[in-house]
Amino acid sequence: MKKFVEKDDVVVLIDLNFRKYIVYTNGKTDKIKGVGVLNPSTLIGNEYGKKLEIGNKQFWILSPSLQDKLQSLHRRAQIILPRDAAHILMYCSVEPGQHVLEAGIGSGSLTIALASAVAPNGKIISYDIREDFIEHALKNIRKAGLDRYVSIKTKDVTESIGEKELDAVILDIPNPWEAIENVWDALKVGGYFCAYSPLTSQVEKTVKELWKHRFIEIKTFENIQREMIVSTHGTRPSFDMLGHTGYLTFARKILQP
Amino acid sequence: MKKFVEKDDVVVLIDLNFRKYIVYTNGKTDKIKGVGVLNPSTLIGNEYGKKLEIGNKQFWILSPSLQDKLQSLHRRAQIILPRDAAHILMYCSVEPGQHVLEAGIGSGSLTIALASAVAPNGKIISYDIREDFIEHALKNIRKAGLDRYVSIKTKDVTESIGEKELDAVILDIPNPWEAIENVWDALKVGGYFCAYSPLTSQVEKTVKELWKHRFIEIKTFENIQREMIVSTHGTRPSFDMLGHTGYLTFARKILQP
Amino acid sequence: MKKFVEKDDVVVLIDLNFRKYIVYTNGKTDKIKGVGVLNPSTLIGNEYGKKLEIGNKQFWILSPSLQDKLQSLHRRAQIILPRDAAHILMYCSVEPGQHVLEAGIGSGSLTIALASAVAPNGKIISYDIREDFIEHALKNIRKAGLDRYVSIKTKDVTESIGEKELDAVILDIPNPWEAIENVWDALKVGGYFCAYSPLTSQVEKTVKELWKHRFIEIKTFENIQREMIVSTHGTRPSFDMLGHTGYLTFARKILQP
Amino acid sequence: MKKFVEKDDVVVLIDLNFRKYIVYTNGKTDKIKGVGVLNPSTLIGNEYGKKLEIGNKQFWILSPSLQDKLQSLHRRAQIILPRDAAHILMYCSVEPGQHVLEAGIGSGSLTIALASAVAPNGKIISYDIREDFIEHALKNIRKAGLDRYVSIKTKDVTESIGEKELDAVILDIPNPWEAIENVWDALKVGGYFCAYSPLTSQVEKTVKELWKHRFIEIKTFENIQREMIVSTHGTRPSFDMLGHTGYLTFARKILQP
Repeated sequence: MKKFVEKDDVVVLIDLNFRKYIVYTNGKTDKIKGVGVLNPSTLIGNEYGKKLEIGNKQFWILSPSLQDKLQSLHRRAQIILPRDAAHILMYCSVEPGQHVLEAGIGSGSLTIALASAVAPNGKIISYDIREDFIEHALKNIRKAGLDRYVSIKTKDVTESIGEKELDAVILDIPNPWEAIENVWDALKVGGYFCAYSPLTSQVEKTVKELWKHRFIEIKTFENIQREMIVSTHGTRPSFDMLGHTGYLTFARKILQP
Repeated sequence: MKKFVEKDDVVVLIDLNFRKYIVYTNGKTDKIKGVGVLNPSTLIGNEYGKKLEIGNKQFWILSPSLQDKLQSLHRRAQIILPRDAAHILMYCSVEPGQHVLEAGIGSGSLTIALASAVAPNGKIISYDIREDFIEHALKNIRKAGLDRYVSIKTKDVTESIGEKELDAVILDIPNPWEAIENVWDALKVGGYFCAYSPLTSQVEKTVKELWKHRFIEIKTFENIQREMIVSTHGTRPSFDMLGHTGYLTFARKILQP
Repeated sequence: MKKFVEKDDVVVLIDLNFRKYIVYTNGKTDKIKGVGVLNPSTLIGNEYGKKLEIGNKQFWILSPSLQDKLQSLHRRAQIILPRDAAHILMYCSVEPGQHVLEAGIGSGSLTIALASAVAPNGKIISYDIREDFIEHALKNIRKAGLDRYVSIKTKDVTESIGEKELDAVILDIPNPWEAIENVWDALKVGGYFCAYSPLTSQVEKTVKELWKHRFIEIKTFENIQREMIVSTHGTRPSFDMLGHTGYLTFARKILQP
Repeated sequence: MKKFVEKDDVVVLIDLNFRKYIVYTNGKTDKIKGVGVLNPSTLIGNEYGKKLEIGNKQFWILSPSLQDKLQSLHRRAQIILPRDAAHILMYCSVEPGQHVLEAGIGSGSLTIALASAVAPNGKIISYDIREDFIEHALKNIRKAGLDRYVSIKTKDVTESIGEKELDAVILDIPNPWEAIENVWDALKVGGYFCAYSPLTSQVEKTVKELWKHRFIEIKTFENIQREMIVSTHGTRPSFDMLGHTGYLTFARKILQP
């Protein structure tokens, strides 16, 4: 483990409000919103874990974690939050070496979480029908240093899937039920299906379509996360809370119903 | 990927109510609660994904996922549920190759999740003060095929930690605040602290102790999961719900406050 | 306020586990499940708030509150819980003197809450199509001493409503959307509509039908209640929790959209 | 029931976003934030339930419900929300004719809910130690037309309670545990105690103090309310959600432990 920032390092700057900024030390001088104009090479030589001053603000400098990468994403569409991504990784048992398909790519948030999980010898195949989303997501994936594990296709998952023997397929599209036949064909036996949908009618249509195919353990979950605020006054749940992200529907391919 | 069950395979049998039974095909004939008397070698040659009959019950046969392993654990103490384990793995950015310490070992549930995440080149160090818990957990870890990634010590984490430069330390003990000084010393810069505690007073004491040391991003969360039931009648949240598991308190080591 | 139990009193017996039994002191000797054989007249003369022994069990004796009445109901169908009933009373602004229609009657739980709220000079009109439910509910309502405020009709609310200028109409039927036209006609201007439905599809159909009529403030809520357990060990949310009761959809009649 | 607005009426104006403004038709011309300059007498003669134009905005005109009154309060301190007020009214079985003490008065929100429940022949006694809160709350209570049911005292409930034989005592103060001995003395047998507290440590201290006195059914609840959003796209829980209001601790006075 490095004690000091070196050339070629990717670092995270964390301000006093715990906002995070990912910086590549070999990058060009640039204006970063929330940091100011920064020549990344000036970070080289600082000791990890120390506080440094840029402009008139203070930042801790650390190696970026997966959580840091997800929290500092440039968002375009609504993203799948780390807590839902964590649930997907665990439930679908995503591991190094696996081949996982996702559609659509959104801002690349889930892509990054999946790519981290299958690295160094697995692959994420990501379908999306919108070129602008793909470009935006790709920037985020590159910044996270994970583009070598991701293969992106401008393709509609409800029309066809070229891949076979996939370990899992994760759908974040408005009409997941229309892709289920293709997904069954593309999955290996025992492989996982997951659809992320904000609406109850999407859940209903997806589950009812899954019933018609050879899937077991068809289950839908909703994750609610509450922060607890500890202060010198005492402890209580946070008043701020996100009321809903999306429903996660899971299933597993079998050969015989 | 294998199409048929072979000698030396570990398989999962899933019954029609989706209860899961992990079986090692080289094991001895044994009576398994929920399955009956089974000679594991009779499973060899079956096609993965097919349904087979044992006694008068039907089972699907598949390769076990991490989720399967966690759901089929022999529980002794209350376990850290997969959803909380998933949150810990994501938040602490646990990855292959890392060295992570946990205390105590409980039934080995979190140990298995952590070991899966750091394999094939990382290591989980697990402290517990009770020999009976260690023995019980070790059986579960062995059944999950992960014991080579786990090193267990009969040791009290609040007294001392021998390891240094750890990527993360996860505490599931009644008094996590008493270990915080040791944890800071044992963590690498940027390393993660996590404590799992069911009681609000434990959260309070832990957070207040963290304030006194060089940690940032001190945050406490509670995860609530709700299942949605889809039937031919319609869709609704499940009436059954676990109201509480535990609070997760996270923090990250820095050098300078 | 009476200090001692007198003839003609209705009392509640509360056992050491806080289970509640409503007893009418003028009633006949009877076997009460959880209490044993009891001659109610033997309760007369006891001091309210004291503990007494019946058989080999101990009970506190008190005057019954509305909460006691609801908690000691004989249940046949699933009941609207006190917390949802409380929300309905508040949101629909149910007050003494009002005329409120409910359909169906269920076990009479909501009827009792509504009757308590409109007494002493209001009236609850309760429709149900099943005679057996009506009979069962009526027994509960009589035991709660509220039958004089309730007028029950064997009638289908989706076919017609005879009443006019109602202050509120509360529907606990499988198809509330089919009654909405009748409800609009029966409500006074500014009057409240409420439907209690466990399924999301029921909510959808109800709201979409409300859109077609002159209603404003169309809103749907779900109430989740969590108990906190305080013990000598510390404080935490209860592990036991009811995950779902039903969705409450409210609206208010206006003349002009 | 009146069809048209008359002299002396109190009305509620509801705008197209369902914001509510309570207006007394005999009041003076005034500038109302959200409505503009309004001479209340110009509202007389309008038909209830119709939409009218004031300035360049449209409003429905209706008789105000309790919910309307609570939602249009001028807030100074954080208020007890209608859903928690509803829970208190139900759980403490507050009814016409009762005498209920509350401390402190806050913005008068709970006072208004309690006064509505005990009217026309009951009484709310409200203690607060801050004159400025009392004055502010009194304005809200008067606007709701309920001041005749409320008697306010500048008094600290932890020091003494002058009243006896109260049906219920509701505490919204930072240190409810310090008032419990006084509350026991002031309650009638079977009377209800309720404390509303945002912090877990307040709950703990309150419950532990209740244990020392003759109270039964000591229980703490938290109410979580989630709105469901129905649109032409589909149905989902609202993204906006209030994560926490306060914990409600209830107990009931008995004579013998």
